[in-house]
Amino acid sequence: MGKTTKDQLGRLVELDKGMRPPTVILVRPQLGENIGAAVRNMLNFGLSELRLVAPRDGWPNPDADAMAAGALPVLEQAKVYGTTEEAVADLHYVLATTARRRDLEIPVLGTKDVGAKLRDIGAGGQNTGVMFGPEKAGLTNDDVVLADAILTYPINPAFQSLNLAQAVGIFAYIWAADEGVPPVFQGPESTPAARVDLVYMMEHLEQELEKAGFFYPADKSPLMKRNIRAPYIRAKMTDQEVRTMRGIIKALAQARGKGRGKETR
Amino acid sequence: MGKTTKDQLGRLVELDKGMRPPTVILVRPQLGENIGAAVRNMLNFGLSELRLVAPRDGWPNPDADAMAAGALPVLEQAKVYGTTEEAVADLHYVLATTARRRDLEIPVLGTKDVGAKLRDIGAGGQNTGVMFGPEKAGLTNDDVVLADAILTYPINPAFQSLNLAQAVGIFAYIWAADEGVPPVFQGPESTPAARVDLVYMMEHLEQELEKAGFFYPADKSPLMKRNIRAPYIRAKMTDQEVRTMRGIIKALAQARGKGRGKETR
Repeated sequence: MGKTTKDQLGRLVELDKGMRPPTVILVRPQLGENIGAAVRNMLNFGLSELRLVAPRDGWPNPDADAMAAGALPVLEQAKVYGTTEEAVADLHYVLATTARRRDLEIPVLGTKDVGAKLRDIGAGGQNTGVMFGPEKAGLTNDDVVLADAILTYPINPAFQSLNLAQAVGIFAYIWAADEGVPPVFQGPESTPAARVDLVYMMEHLEQELEKAGFFYPADKSPLMKRNIRAPYIRAKMTDQEVRTMRGIIKALAQARGKGRGKETR
Repeated sequence: MGKTTKDQLGRLVELDKGMRPPTVILVRPQLGENIGAAVRNMLNFGLSELRLVAPRDGWPNPDADAMAAGALPVLEQAKVYGTTEEAVADLHYVLATTARRRDLEIPVLGTKDVGAKLRDIGAGGQNTGVMFGPEKAGLTNDDVVLADAILTYPINPAFQSLNLAQAVGIFAYIWAADEGVPPVFQGPESTPAARVDLVYMMEHLEQELEKAGFFYPADKSPLMKRNIRAPYIRAKMTDQEVRTMRGIIKALAQARGKGRGKETR
């Protein structure tokens, strides 16, 4: 398998200058498939720096490559270390993800604060990272003491076994969401119809309803008109929708004129 | 396979009374494995209502069961519908997840607002739901027009293909995080040492350092002492840690007294 150049990876992640995304550190991961799925989930949300500590099945791992699919360049640039100490040596701020309480004097962060914290530290020119332990067993206390803080997810206490790749993906999402990465697209760009066109439309509708003898008894008619107008106002109709609605009114009125509605004339 | 009772499911999700978690609707899902992985990701963050619209490989699906593992009760209670219209018929507020811009007059929500929105609507006694389209193709426009709003993730534009189960899992996380589900555990409960104990520890350390001739030249000694104290203060040491540290000081001083340090006496 060919070596990925930094340039190829660059095209897979476009970040603002000055952003220093956190490094993901998988400590003693077991299944290659999970490593491959993890890098896809990382890249979905713009993370591309991966470190592996003593992967169980060696490295490279064909199962990881197969699962990584389009995120293969992230795997090919992954760095492999023998120990957790070496993997975090050049980082300035490290988080340890764990679902178990530890008897360690390390602060515990919820996910709400963590994106902003990593952004601030990164903006200060420092390197951040987050550690994930092996499937099932999780990080050991010896791993966790290398971290500045523990990160916990708001997980269902009755069903805590979170898949490794999923855990990595949620972290990547948190980072992207808290970094304020904008959604890929925004809402509809078409402007709502001018209110005057909406009023003409309403009047058109009301005229035809008058002709049809709809407003009966007469003293109820102001209330009935308000009730008819309300949903159209709320709908923030576009110009095109107003034109379509006028066509509908016209078509129904003409049908009435031609068909059994004749008696109302 | 045995039928799950509501009670069994109840034990897998414990929510505050009055919470109405959103229903997850998988529209024409293809791979059973993805359905099984999706329910695990749902249950990790407390979601347990699943609806399926025309699953490609029929229902039940052994691949889904195998992947669901401990979340099997969620699968067993899933409801299956022939059309998207039927699947959303009794819901009051429906989101459509999509990574593609649609030429539809439907508002687009980012993920930041959505948890609070669903909570508010649920608290008002209404049923909410979120639709996910089939792998690769995604929701059709005919599906999307059944939604009140489109939900988009802050995804990497250069790598948008998000796995179905992962997409469901991130939604579940967003819901749990914004619902304010607390982390499973909090930070360390042990109280920091009283400041006086910390001061005695410092004085002990400084006395031993004095004996060792550490503070040289003498006019620098106040600055040196401040620099020595600072990290211990910042560390918010506990009582036990202070006792340990005093043991360390004592041990080092005694070793010095016994060994090559004798010349400093």
